[in-house]
Amino acid sequence: FIIADKMSKAEARSKFEGVFYELIEEIDAVVAETKIAQPARDWIRENLKYNTIGGKLNRGLSVIDTYKLVTNKSELTEEEYKKVAVLGWTIELLQAYFLVADDIMDASKTRRGQPCWYLKPNVGMIAINDAFILESVLYLLLKKYFRNTDYYVDLLDLYHEITFFTELGQLLDLITAPEDQVDLSRFSLDKHTYIVTYKTAFYSFYLPVALALYMAGLATKSNLEQCKKVLLPLGAYFQVQDDYLDCYGDPEVIGKIGTDIQDNKCGWVINVALERASPAQREILDNNYGRKDSEAEARVKTVFKELDIEPYYHQYEDKVAGEIRTLIDNVDESEGLKKQVFTEFFNKIYKRQK
Amino acid sequence: FIIADKMSKAEARSKFEGVFYELIEEIDAVVAETKIAQPARDWIRENLKYNTIGGKLNRGLSVIDTYKLVTNKSELTEEEYKKVAVLGWTIELLQAYFLVADDIMDASKTRRGQPCWYLKPNVGMIAINDAFILESVLYLLLKKYFRNTDYYVDLLDLYHEITFFTELGQLLDLITAPEDQVDLSRFSLDKHTYIVTYKTAFYSFYLPVALALYMAGLATKSNLEQCKKVLLPLGAYFQVQDDYLDCYGDPEVIGKIGTDIQDNKCGWVINVALERASPAQREILDNNYGRKDSEAEARVKTVFKELDIEPYYHQYEDKVAGEIRTLIDNVDESEGLKKQVFTEFFNKIYKRQK
Ligand SMILES: [Mg+2]
Ligand SMILES: [Mg+2]
Ligand SMILES: [Mg+2]
Ligand SMILES: [Mg+2]
Ligand SMILES: [Mg+2]
Ligand SMILES: [Mg+2]
Repeated sequence: FIIADKMSKAEARSKFEGVFYELIEEIDAVVAETKIAQPARDWIRENLKYNTIGGKLNRGLSVIDTYKLVTNKSELTEEEYKKVAVLGWTIELLQAYFLVADDIMDASKTRRGQPCWYLKPNVGMIAINDAFILESVLYLLLKKYFRNTDYYVDLLDLYHEITFFTELGQLLDLITAPEDQVDLSRFSLDKHTYIVTYKTAFYSFYLPVALALYMAGLATKSNLEQCKKVLLPLGAYFQVQDDYLDCYGDPEVIGKIGTDIQDNKCGWVINVALERASPAQREILDNNYGRKDSEAEARVKTVFKELDIEPYYHQYEDKVAGEIRTLIDNVDESEGLKKQVFTEFFNKIYKRQK
Repeated sequence: FIIADKMSKAEARSKFEGVFYELIEEIDAVVAETKIAQPARDWIRENLKYNTIGGKLNRGLSVIDTYKLVTNKSELTEEEYKKVAVLGWTIELLQAYFLVADDIMDASKTRRGQPCWYLKPNVGMIAINDAFILESVLYLLLKKYFRNTDYYVDLLDLYHEITFFTELGQLLDLITAPEDQVDLSRFSLDKHTYIVTYKTAFYSFYLPVALALYMAGLATKSNLEQCKKVLLPLGAYFQVQDDYLDCYGDPEVIGKIGTDIQDNKCGWVINVALERASPAQREILDNNYGRKDSEAEARVKTVFKELDIEPYYHQYEDKVAGEIRTLIDNVDESEGLKKQVFTEFFNKIYKRQK
């Protein structure tokens, strides 16, 4: 049973991926119409492949899952599947736009197990224009597949708004925790909540569901409001877990060694620690956080230990999980929204170890 | 008379600039609603001011001029002026989006007489996200001022298309003439035409007129097609002049010393030279173009001189100007478009020395 479920998940992913290969051809055809030279066409194809495929595709796939749920359809026609999959790929493209740029801004070395795009030979800062192109392609696809729908303009407004919100979260993150200047007095749990909500939750949690509701004809004002009410805290909770696991997760399980402390990240753990630290502990944090030095990192972790962050996290997780369950229980299904949409998101992440 | 004309031009510019100061407050109010921390609000205000103001504002102002011309209005109501000025500022914001990024990609040092934004203390690569925000603000303004019009969705489609085209032109430019690899075999006049048309003419010449026509209710398919037919060659001609003046203009008049030869630019002059060069001259060009070395630059200029580029330019300018005049003569005014729109653009640039 579990294997069957995993099988179908892999199948769903590979069917979804197949759509992107079709889209690359469709995008190339549009580009070719402008009569641009062949090397530029090849470049765009490589940009699309390298930066959009290779991730977990959870965001894109959740558009399809949500659409099936709210329309009560276990099978979609080919045309319907393609349309909803295109919506899924627009989120993956939006994410690619942000990640290509984020890697430059964070001076990262790898992404999804391969070198960051800007580090590839001959790419360099051209990656910035490539990021721009990834975003443009998103609108090109929305136009091709949704121009004739009565919600097209709403999709555009939604994308513009969520893009802006993500940039606001990114900005606050960048100026609160610059790579090269450690200043913990800028950190706070309020800023952390803003950053995770705006930088991640809007586009990763709210956007997939909102897109599915538009296509299902269920994007009423009340339904969208309810989605925000549940999915933004859920997304923030997801990011708190991410921050916690970076520090306390098993590297064997999460598949990487956490670097948030050395990278001066404004994460949940340090912000809780700052609220609880004595002046002496604070001094240790000030002198050791954000330094590329594993002994400094160990001193930070010792303070975290003294402050009982680990047990506090589990209490906190129980509290937040309870609040989110209540929010889900209170969802009004009268306009076609379903609690199950949220329960499935919730179950995927509750008490996750990776 | 000339002074009065200049006066009113300066007045028009400063009135238009005044609108942007109002818009900064309106944008800040929207940002403030998200409850983002004050330092991020201050950062966005500074980003908007530093990168959007300070240019010649020709693109933005030409939306207003075109609108007045096609509507036969010499005076606009305050509300009407504000709306058309907002359209003008959306072009200036689009340009700011591109220029902030272009300066990083070109490793430029200054822009409009001040350090490039990415070189300001504490900015660095955060400039990439700041560029993203400039683009988002454009859509925020379109939504605030045009959401209730029947051409709103057309404005969005127009912006998405022109943005993509500009990125295509930028891409071809970047991969044809990378800063650090000189390879003249990649250059050609065809590529040059593509680059100048897509990178510059669409957003600088076609977009202002198209926006004005939408607001005037005159954006018929035929009118827009006619605008493209005239304004794209006009924009390409403008850029050919720019390339020519970079090499042959009087630095006292154009206000800067040309650097295209040392910067390995795929400009009009080198492309003409490549078409006309003997094998021996070609070798000199291959060995000396794109080198940060004034003696190499002088050797390139000697070849240009041997190839009679200067007299050829004047012939070429006469030919192109004649073709554009014919295009303007053939404009069909029956759907409310006016030849005068194009004549004014043409007269501003014909035989310009700066
Ligand atoms: Mg990063
Ligand atoms: Mg980052
Ligand atoms: Mg993390
Ligand atoms: Mg440049
Ligand atoms: Mg450039
Ligand atoms: Mg130039």
